Amino acid sequence: MKATEKLKNKNNDGKLICVGLDTDVNKIPEHLKKTANPVLEFNKAIIESTASYTAAFKINFAFYECEGIDGMKNLERTLSLIPEDTMVIADAKRGDIGNTSLMYAKSVFDYFKFDAVTVHGYMGKDSVEPFLRYDDKLIFILALTSNPSAADFEKLKTEDGSFLFQNVIRKVNEWNGKNNCGIVFGATKTQELKDNIDSFGNLAVLLPGVGAQGGSLEEVVKTFKEKKRTDLLVNVSRGIIYKSRDIDFAEAAKQEIIALNGTVRNIYG
Amino acid sequence: MKATEKLKNKNNDGKLICVGLDTDVNKIPEHLKKTANPVLEFNKAIIESTASYTAAFKINFAFYECEGIDGMKNLERTLSLIPEDTMVIADAKRGDIGNTSLMYAKSVFDYFKFDAVTVHGYMGKDSVEPFLRYDDKLIFILALTSNPSAADFEKLKTEDGSFLFQNVIRKVNEWNGKNNCGIVFGATKTQELKDNIDSFGNLAVLLPGVGAQGGSLEEVVKTFKEKKRTDLLVNVSRGIIYKSRDIDFAEAAKQEIIALNGTVRNIYG
Repeated sequence: MKATEKLKNKNNDGKLICVGLDTDVNKIPEHLKKTANPVLEFNKAIIESTASYTAAFKINFAFYECEGIDGMKNLERTLSLIPEDTMVIADAKRGDIGNTSLMYAKSVFDYFKFDAVTVHGYMGKDSVEPFLRYDDKLIFILALTSNPSAADFEKLKTEDGSFLFQNVIRKVNEWNGKNNCGIVFGATKTQELKDNIDSFGNLAVLLPGVGAQGGSLEEVVKTFKEKKRTDLLVNVSRGIIYKSRDIDFAEAAKQEIIALNGTVRNIYG
Repeated sequence: MKATEKLKNKNNDGKLICVGLDTDVNKIPEHLKKTANPVLEFNKAIIESTASYTAAFKINFAFYECEGIDGMKNLERTLSLIPEDTMVIADAKRGDIGNTSLMYAKSVFDYFKFDAVTVHGYMGKDSVEPFLRYDDKLIFILALTSNPSAADFEKLKTEDGSFLFQNVIRKVNEWNGKNNCGIVFGATKTQELKDNIDSFGNLAVLLPGVGAQGGSLEEVVKTFKEKKRTDLLVNVSRGIIYKSRDIDFAEAAKQEIIALNGTVRNIYG
């Protein structure tokens, strides 16, 4: 199934929360640390408890790469636990010259079979194009990110008075001929979201930063609702998976995503 | 040994060519394809034949990641074949919010034990800072890259009339308190190199793009020589490792890097 269809089906079902599997071995509940593979046990329990309520899962590569080969094996095994109808995003933030980006695209799409990927656009179109060839996938290009230092470059003003990130959004719209492009837009940047949502065109929007980073789900969803848009994914990682650090972590994660879905429903009505 | 010391020792010895191990299983000589692990056999032969002549090795993660777990095992094994006194660069182009970049830094520096890494700076200082904490490493931040589409964003003019990549170089100079920062600057951009070299300060410079991408070693080296700078690394990947695609590939690679070193020596005198 195409990534955009998977997302649409979930969105139509009122689901727009993405569960971020930023699994840090140091933050896993104590009782799991005695098992043979704590990270995998943790992910398995989180996936089982939240899959019915989530729009997508996002796997943050860094948390697996830091454990080397074993970590990448866990990433691979985690993927196999995710239901086929649910989009899985490779939050890998790759981006290189063309022939190298092609290899990265092969890694996330052909080898790991992800539905979507996050990509750095700094190097321009030819660095993104190898990803765009996959018309059944979704490619989220970094526009305005959720971190404080986003201001360093992303909010630099360019010659025509627009911010750099606005130039990125403009270009990504141009690159969207196969309708497989999206942008990453920080949920912490609510004013900028309001100011720029009209420029998003047909792009899918991945919004990280709700929860630990301080972004407000309500404000994000209200902004999209006002524009009659439902094609968004709000990522929550730590706020869901570490809601409880105790034996009830999976149930707590489930209750948290149910509560977040309730917040969304209350706004969309 | 600190990364900067490794580089300085090699530079003092007249070596500034970096061999890029962009090993593509489809481009490996036929006779190696019958071995149990063609990529590793290829890398081993290239490393053995070029290590005495190179300033550094650069490992392009994409070429290993596209083979999944087996590819990452080859990356790990390749690292173990590189002599301790020779800098190894993780050409991984990572970059994410702080807590995630920290995990990427742990992966390349603590797990794989690389001496240096390439990093996307688009997200600003807090995305790079976790790498900068490693004061014995070298962090090369993308400034002006070698690909044609670098013009899309890197050469956007900002409000004060400077290009985006010039703003990046300015910031990286500010971040260089531990003297562990560098920039990536495309060897294909010779005019921009001449126009901007005075802004490089104490930054180490990694220049990809010589060979297959069309950059000129002579022009790059002359530009640095005119400024009495020797702290550069010129990466050549395909131009060395695929110099011959036959049984003599390792010897051909060796002869090629010897010839490139000769070109450098002729210019520095």
